Amino acid sequence: MSERFTVMSEQAISDALADLPDWSLEKDGLKRVFQFKDFMEAFAFLTKVAMSAEALNHHPEIFNVYNKVTISGLCTHEADHAITTLDIELAGKISDFVS
Amino acid sequence: MSERFTVMSEQAISDALADLPDWSLEKDGLKRVFQFKDFMEAFAFLTKVAMSAEALNHHPEIFNVYNKVTISGLCTHEADHAITTLDIELAGKISDFVS
Amino acid sequence: MSERFTVMSEQAISDALADLPDWSLEKDGLKRVFQFKDFMEAFAFLTKVAMSAEALNHHPEIFNVYNKVTISGLCTHEADHAITTLDIELAGKISDFVS
Amino acid sequence: MSERFTVMSEQAISDALADLPDWSLEKDGLKRVFQFKDFMEAFAFLTKVAMSAEALNHHPEIFNVYNKVTISGLCTHEADHAITTLDIELAGKISDFVS
Repeated sequence: MSERFTVMSEQAISDALADLPDWSLEKDGLKRVFQFKDFMEAFAFLTKVAMSAEALNHHPEIFNVYNKVTISGLCTHEADHAITTLDIELAGKISDFVS
Repeated sequence: MSERFTVMSEQAISDALADLPDWSLEKDGLKRVFQFKDFMEAFAFLTKVAMSAEALNHHPEIFNVYNKVTISGLCTHEADHAITTLDIELAGKISDFVS
Repeated sequence: MSERFTVMSEQAISDALADLPDWSLEKDGLKRVFQFKDFMEAFAFLTKVAMSAEALNHHPEIFNVYNKVTISGLCTHEADHAITTLDIELAGKISDFVS
Repeated sequence: MSERFTVMSEQAISDALADLPDWSLEKDGLKRVFQFKDFMEAFAFLTKVAMSAEALNHHPEIFNVYNKVTISGLCTHEADHAITTLDIELAGKISDFVS
């Protein structure tokens, strides 16, 4: 069976993050912090993150307080928590919401 | 008891709509049509409309298909379906989401 | 290329609707009306409908006013607006949210 | 000007928490952990929390991963981070969504 993702080398992750400049690679996965005008804008953004996460069946950690959102722990559980193409795809979709 | 709204004269409604140029006054209340890039943007907008409507305890008719949203029937039931300051307030908040 | 849906015969639609008793077949597609305790429950339900619709890339018509929601026009545009297995799949998912 | 909340004594907080048995008082405010069937149910719940928080203009910390939600840091910033009637009101509304 073909997998829905490919595990990435350190070099491939590094190259991909060059196109995702506000994301960082932390011990537990990819992470980015977002700031909005107010809570309503922050939560509307989260709604788009939720729809993307559900469509990919790939769910990161989401933290929100008022106008701030942190997406973290973005890694692939089925790949023993490695960073895969699926993580880069979701990070890219999320970045598109704020570009 | 003071009301949470004031019924508006035809002139006052007309003046208010001059500042809300994409809204029209229909038989069943104020109406505006919105178009977005895709469904996710349309639904994120609806989430903000929902939070505003709930905060004001004032709920218009909402119609969505894919990237299109229609808000209509915006009038004040407690004022015998007249247009009141509450309707103009909600229309203004909704317009701010797309400006 | 294999399609992501199969057009259904009248008999197959009829059989499928037997398991979806609150849905009806209208001129423009499948339709069901839902009623909730209040607006917040209605909109939380819509959020689940939105995630399912986006995951299937299949978007019905959504109408809401206060505690009422109507899902309608559920048919498959790529199949010349016929009812397909994709419509029955989405109707089933939506029904599961209220069962 | 009358405040929109009242600071509560330790006894009053303790009494209120007796009616909110799954909430605990932590250093940074009230906290409760919720678990749902899946991500869609968790996020639909968060949508109701968001509408309630915005209506009260009172926003706790929200953490989600897949089917788990943690609401924490629920305290009143304008009262120097004390627990007030506003916190108990929001905790009660949130509990009602899962009862």
